Amino acid sequence: MQKPRIALDMDEVIADVQPKFEALFEEAFGWRPDPEQYRGGKIYDLPGTQKLREALHLKGFFADLPVMPDSQAVVRELMADFDIYIVTAAMEFRASFEDKYDWLAQHFPFIHWKNIIFCGDKSVIRAEYMIDDHVRNLRTFQGKGLLYTASHNLGEEAFTRVNNWVEVRAFFEEERRRLA
Amino acid sequence: MQKPRIALDMDEVIADVQPKFEALFEEAFGWRPDPEQYRGGKIYDLPGTQKLREALHLKGFFADLPVMPDSQAVVRELMADFDIYIVTAAMEFRASFEDKYDWLAQHFPFIHWKNIIFCGDKSVIRAEYMIDDHVRNLRTFQGKGLLYTASHNLGEEAFTRVNNWVEVRAFFEEERRRLA
Repeated sequence: MQKPRIALDMDEVIADVQPKFEALFEEAFGWRPDPEQYRGGKIYDLPGTQKLREALHLKGFFADLPVMPDSQAVVRELMADFDIYIVTAAMEFRASFEDKYDWLAQHFPFIHWKNIIFCGDKSVIRAEYMIDDHVRNLRTFQGKGLLYTASHNLGEEAFTRVNNWVEVRAFFEEERRRLA
Repeated sequence: MQKPRIALDMDEVIADVQPKFEALFEEAFGWRPDPEQYRGGKIYDLPGTQKLREALHLKGFFADLPVMPDSQAVVRELMADFDIYIVTAAMEFRASFEDKYDWLAQHFPFIHWKNIIFCGDKSVIRAEYMIDDHVRNLRTFQGKGLLYTASHNLGEEAFTRVNNWVEVRAFFEEERRRLA
């Protein structure tokens, strides 16, 4: 029987983009903002800092991002009962493809290439669950959406929120019991 | 209102892989087989020629493939009534990502990056139609599958067959009338 599918975002869900942008911000402007200052947005939504976002187009940007704590262990556990698909909106960033592919091979070698998807608009994805930090992706999703906490989604209340991978584990333990 | 979605494969549907493999075959073995000799398979299914397939992993392989006749014009026409998503199983070939992206930008510049998907297993794709040359992709698809004729699918009868883009156009003209 087919396992239920989980569509799993990369950036800010299994890969932590935040530390790199904080460092780039400090390098460019000489100070480091408190996350409260851009609550509901990204660090480069602060006035006059939009150019920082261009770093996303550079080769290497996605190559060395830290892995979100506990994500490797929990993903591996979930694979017993769920089909995990990595679904990342890489298509905006031509330079990111090989970096993202290599990053996954390095940190999530147990995920087969058949289960990796580089896309743009995620409304074309069919799965039972989606874990994502962008409400726009969860809004067009027909399954159960989990909102992974990030600065730009604080205050959103339309979706079940997970703050970290320990909470992701707990959510799916509950789902397993419900489905059993 | 949302338009019906068409998931459109690249290789052997809008990009013609066949001439390059025929040339590689002739270069390696000094003769050119008649397509009848590998009917139901690929050219590199001929005994002793499997190594040819490794060319798919080379940088540049997908960069200069010829465009399937009429595909550009028909895709552009279809965009009036359908959302077109390019869905290609690129993930097996790390070296293909940038080549495929550039090929699309060159030959199908009217397709937005949001509508491009590099994947592996296509069972995770949600759309109303899929045009593909592999029955394995159509079998797991929940919408209407169209089988685009290629040597390896000759003899398959489980799906509506399209032999060229003029037939694709005709199929969707009929669908438009049916849906109107």
